[in-house]
Amino acid sequence: MTVKAFGAHAADKPLVAMDIFRRAPGPHDVEIAIAYCGVCHSDLHTVRGEWGGTQYPCVPGHEIVGHVTAVGDQVTGFKVGETVGVGCMVDSCKHCHACDDGLEQYCENGFTGTYNGPTPDAPGHTLGGYSQKIVVKDSFVLKVRHAEDQLAAVAPLLCAGITTWSPLRHWNVGPGKKVGIVGIGGLGHMGVKLAHALGAQVVAFTTSPDKRQDALDLGADEVVVSKNPEEMAAHTRSFDFILNTVAASHNLDAYTTLLKLDGTMCLVGAPEHPHPSPSVGVLIFGRRSIAGSLIGGIKETQEMLDFCAEHGITADIEMIKAQEIDAAYERMLKSDVKYRFVIDTASMGVS
Amino acid sequence: MTVKAFGAHAADKPLVAMDIFRRAPGPHDVEIAIAYCGVCHSDLHTVRGEWGGTQYPCVPGHEIVGHVTAVGDQVTGFKVGETVGVGCMVDSCKHCHACDDGLEQYCENGFTGTYNGPTPDAPGHTLGGYSQKIVVKDSFVLKVRHAEDQLAAVAPLLCAGITTWSPLRHWNVGPGKKVGIVGIGGLGHMGVKLAHALGAQVVAFTTSPDKRQDALDLGADEVVVSKNPEEMAAHTRSFDFILNTVAASHNLDAYTTLLKLDGTMCLVGAPEHPHPSPSVGVLIFGRRSIAGSLIGGIKETQEMLDFCAEHGITADIEMIKAQEIDAAYERMLKSDVKYRFVIDTASMGVS
Repeated sequence: MTVKAFGAHAADKPLVAMDIFRRAPGPHDVEIAIAYCGVCHSDLHTVRGEWGGTQYPCVPGHEIVGHVTAVGDQVTGFKVGETVGVGCMVDSCKHCHACDDGLEQYCENGFTGTYNGPTPDAPGHTLGGYSQKIVVKDSFVLKVRHAEDQLAAVAPLLCAGITTWSPLRHWNVGPGKKVGIVGIGGLGHMGVKLAHALGAQVVAFTTSPDKRQDALDLGADEVVVSKNPEEMAAHTRSFDFILNTVAASHNLDAYTTLLKLDGTMCLVGAPEHPHPSPSVGVLIFGRRSIAGSLIGGIKETQEMLDFCAEHGITADIEMIKAQEIDAAYERMLKSDVKYRFVIDTASMGVS
Repeated sequence: MTVKAFGAHAADKPLVAMDIFRRAPGPHDVEIAIAYCGVCHSDLHTVRGEWGGTQYPCVPGHEIVGHVTAVGDQVTGFKVGETVGVGCMVDSCKHCHACDDGLEQYCENGFTGTYNGPTPDAPGHTLGGYSQKIVVKDSFVLKVRHAEDQLAAVAPLLCAGITTWSPLRHWNVGPGKKVGIVGIGGLGHMGVKLAHALGAQVVAFTTSPDKRQDALDLGADEVVVSKNPEEMAAHTRSFDFILNTVAASHNLDAYTTLLKLDGTMCLVGAPEHPHPSPSVGVLIFGRRSIAGSLIGGIKETQEMLDFCAEHGITADIEMIKAQEIDAAYERMLKSDVKYRFVIDTASMGVS
């Protein structure tokens, strides 16, 4: 079938309306009418070819919420009309240690990205959620239990939500733990909401004094302006865990020194230019760790969605039309968004 | 009392014989006649003022083995004639979280180093084990259960041994775990012996093909010459834990890529010049960690000594006279030692 989508024909071209192919649902497939799709920094990097390896035409989007319109005859978990989500992955090998453990994001044979991944479908690479419909293997489809009027704000949970949830859970963030969230953007604002809902004491770090009240409103117990050395020093050796969502190159030591004995700082953004080399002494004198974490597995994504539905958690979003994506990218580059753009796919017109 | 020692009067001066003061044992003190003292890289850095903050005269040495010659009247754990050891610490606050947990090396108020630490004793800073006698608070004295003829080779366990033991234990190295030891020097050779004795599969990494047989003899199951990319690549994503003992600046990514999902590389050496900034992507795509670890607490040092006595483990050493320390430093700088120099304090003469 042919559906309307928005994508780019080359790295230096704007996103434009295009018709793309979607396969007819196979026995294990779920066909989804996409209602909303969040706009992630990865979309921009990929569509503009900044990470290399982008195949064109490129249709980004991996924060997808919609409704089931058809299911394959072997699908038992989903039925037509149900509200569902799709995140960053649409397939993985399903037989390696990581997949066995429900950690498909670390698939030893490489997971298939929701866009720009290998597929037998035309045009030979996956096309993402900036489109009206998508067809996905049932084991990579998530159930969404939020109310219908929350769905646009649910979309960013599929990447920004799970990317922060997975490390918060892996490092046992909860009551009695003091947790820092560095950077109050698309990822960080979800990190603050989730860490707060998990019962931790949450300190938000931002470079912008302007974001102080916003961060408190999101659920932070305290906000530290990271450019203020006195504010930083007051938290020396006090954090159990710090989730660092800032991809721009910055001084990691400013945060590792705030970790207590055996504390970990987890990075979820890969910088374009390397961070200054972190101090080994700071790690040694406190048995501290610097770790990384990548999105999350399907099982824990479902857990996160259910937790968010139960606690009334969604992202803070700004809705846009598909025709506004390029303009939204420019604003995103200036961090001028609170905190995630979401595309209303109704704006794409009728195919 | 006055005892013979070897130390330096300034950063640019050689080590010379000198008489130093030792306090009379207080109620909780143990007076020890030092039989042997290992020579650690930290000794060299400190005595030559390379880390800054060295107070002179400086008498290094924190790998001390000897016999009790007197005890204070409140000492119940030690008696005259017993074989004992002293490591890198002679005091700590004993009331912070770290001390409460038996992790005095991370004392929040700073532990007192065996040399160059603060003390009310003359000359106002602690003087280490390159001396005939030392007086140490009983809670920082270790029992040595090895045979008398092993004592010289036990001395390096007090720093090199515990520095590798503590992270191996903390990260649960044992049967079923694949462990890498990077660098086959004073620390690394103990890391190989201990990881092997703990039941792990041990892979030693060295830059020198010459050390291949040596590392196998120490207990490595396999040796990888780290300059050989094919040998390295064969171990991609296979290690549970890597203990990196190399302080010289080097490419950490070469090792982090060898860690499996959730693997940790622990650094125990602080480089003079920073390592190239480690790849964040390598951490993210595998939830890997880079950590640091500092020596070990008193309780675990005793556990290590007992484990080594039980398993017949000592360091591989080369005995020297006190008059040869400067020459030994020069050889150490060229890694020309298998694998630790140990000073025979009998060479210091009679005070």
